[in-house]
Amino acid sequence: MQLAKELLSGNRLALSRLLTQVENDTPEGRSALIEIFPHTGKAHIIGVTGGPGTGKSTLVNQLGLCFRKHKNPKVAIVAVDPSSPFTGGAVLGDRVRMRDLAGDEGIFIRSMASRGSLGGLARATAGLVQVFDAAGFEIILIETVGAGQAEVDVARLAHTTLVVEAPGLGDEIQANKAGLMEIADILVVNKADRPGVENTLKALKSALELAHPVRHVFQHHGQVEVVEAPDQAEESSWIPPILKTIATDGSGVSELIVEIYRHKENMRESGDWAARERSRLGSELDAMLQEALVFGFREKIPASHYEHVLDKIIQRKLAPRDAVKTLLNGGSK
Amino acid sequence: MQLAKELLSGNRLALSRLLTQVENDTPEGRSALIEIFPHTGKAHIIGVTGGPGTGKSTLVNQLGLCFRKHKNPKVAIVAVDPSSPFTGGAVLGDRVRMRDLAGDEGIFIRSMASRGSLGGLARATAGLVQVFDAAGFEIILIETVGAGQAEVDVARLAHTTLVVEAPGLGDEIQANKAGLMEIADILVVNKADRPGVENTLKALKSALELAHPVRHVFQHHGQVEVVEAPDQAEESSWIPPILKTIATDGSGVSELIVEIYRHKENMRESGDWAARERSRLGSELDAMLQEALVFGFREKIPASHYEHVLDKIIQRKLAPRDAVKTLLNGGSK
Repeated sequence: MQLAKELLSGNRLALSRLLTQVENDTPEGRSALIEIFPHTGKAHIIGVTGGPGTGKSTLVNQLGLCFRKHKNPKVAIVAVDPSSPFTGGAVLGDRVRMRDLAGDEGIFIRSMASRGSLGGLARATAGLVQVFDAAGFEIILIETVGAGQAEVDVARLAHTTLVVEAPGLGDEIQANKAGLMEIADILVVNKADRPGVENTLKALKSALELAHPVRHVFQHHGQVEVVEAPDQAEESSWIPPILKTIATDGSGVSELIVEIYRHKENMRESGDWAARERSRLGSELDAMLQEALVFGFREKIPASHYEHVLDKIIQRKLAPRDAVKTLLNGGSK
Repeated sequence: MQLAKELLSGNRLALSRLLTQVENDTPEGRSALIEIFPHTGKAHIIGVTGGPGTGKSTLVNQLGLCFRKHKNPKVAIVAVDPSSPFTGGAVLGDRVRMRDLAGDEGIFIRSMASRGSLGGLARATAGLVQVFDAAGFEIILIETVGAGQAEVDVARLAHTTLVVEAPGLGDEIQANKAGLMEIADILVVNKADRPGVENTLKALKSALELAHPVRHVFQHHGQVEVVEAPDQAEESSWIPPILKTIATDGSGVSELIVEIYRHKENMRESGDWAARERSRLGSELDAMLQEALVFGFREKIPASHYEHVLDKIIQRKLAPRDAVKTLLNGGSK
């Protein structure tokens, strides 16, 4: 309770402590989340996803610095690492990044490794985002590594999703991009000074056309121009633009921020912002409901009964689906 | 029912049809899974995971062919692609692979894109594995793309997990490997004819030491030798070996198969096989229980009540955790 109050008054130490409570899902963290919830809903949540080797972390650092320069908002970075389910691989990266961004009180970085289950990871991330939101951070960057379901789940938390690519990461990566195209609001080709950048742009353009078949994307002289089929113009007013950046020297990052603000504006006007809020909070409600239902059920049945049923499955005397019926009916088949 | 009987009698068309039913989670698929369940539990389930660009699919093809040559078992390959959550990216790869393995009736390949949620993906994969197991496939290779939670979930389905790496995929990949080290039973450096192979071996060795701090791994003259700390020798008798392969010409694949059989033998002797069966089937039971609980609950509450509660959350008048209490109590706060 005290921690929540101190957070709302801008105490940085309280912020740090509360993030830990929420990440560890403690009773204090849970009740603080309830208390601060009325103060959330103001931040622009931006997901940044892409495979290893795309220079995504450097780009996120640069975005943080550049956002600060533009309109001076408080910026939070949540780095989610679903590929370290057991040990804290994220912590090392955290220290490296601190060095880049040190000295700016307006930027706060938090890393998080996976919490055992993917559902747990998305839920913990949602909690951290709420803490930052209530603490007055206007820009919240969520960074994820990889190209799997975790990214899709994290994208569900964001208002704007950036998908980052880089030249020369192999053909297989290109082939696996169809799913990412459908969550991308903005596509970024980072390391754009590397050879092969034109091929990457071409591959992204094709993947984008595959994901949005009625739209037409053209590229002229390094600039990407998007032309919509006229009869589909009403359906959605946003076509994911493709931008080039070189995060190591900051090239293209200002232009990227302009696109991010443009996407926000577009969402506000089209009603997409409200739709995403509904879907975001609906997912969070569903995840909590599911957790509560499973917890409540486990409390009701004796562990020995559960183990007995599992024994029958292992002996192939009972199929898992029949076992579920047995357990739900409270019987002891 | 008929389909299940035909499957058990070795009908290949019935196999194909049942796989589709199970993947689509139809009522027919569900009841067939119950019927065939007593005939499962014989297959050796091998998970193969690793990032994009490691040549994992080619390696899995070679493993299939090589297993066939060694002891002539029926081999199934289940290619799971969690990075294509919306569109069927896996299908294209399927066709390419069919060409390599065509003409051998003893190999069956099935690809599967993500099923909306990661839990759904793991459950559908478990179902396909049971169908192959009941149909007499003694070796079932499950291949996953990426390095995230999906891989960990799929590893839970396997008796033996191979983690595949390749030289020259960038530093970030190396840094993200701690989690994978803990699920790996065998480490494979594929594309071992490429430059940088010694660096990859060194990085894997370090990551392995980090994941298993009490064990000591040494590498001499290209061969990897593992020395265990004496006081820890009782705890687990298996140290993940590191092997080099060149899947494109088959180099090292026979040696890899020898290690896979050695791991199986070791698990049988140590009791690990039984422990993994328990954990495998326990996870499956839990996932089905959770699904049944959520489904049962949704049936009970009117959609309008749920939407009303969600509205309150969006207006920040009710925190998600309080909303769960409201819904579970059947009240209408």
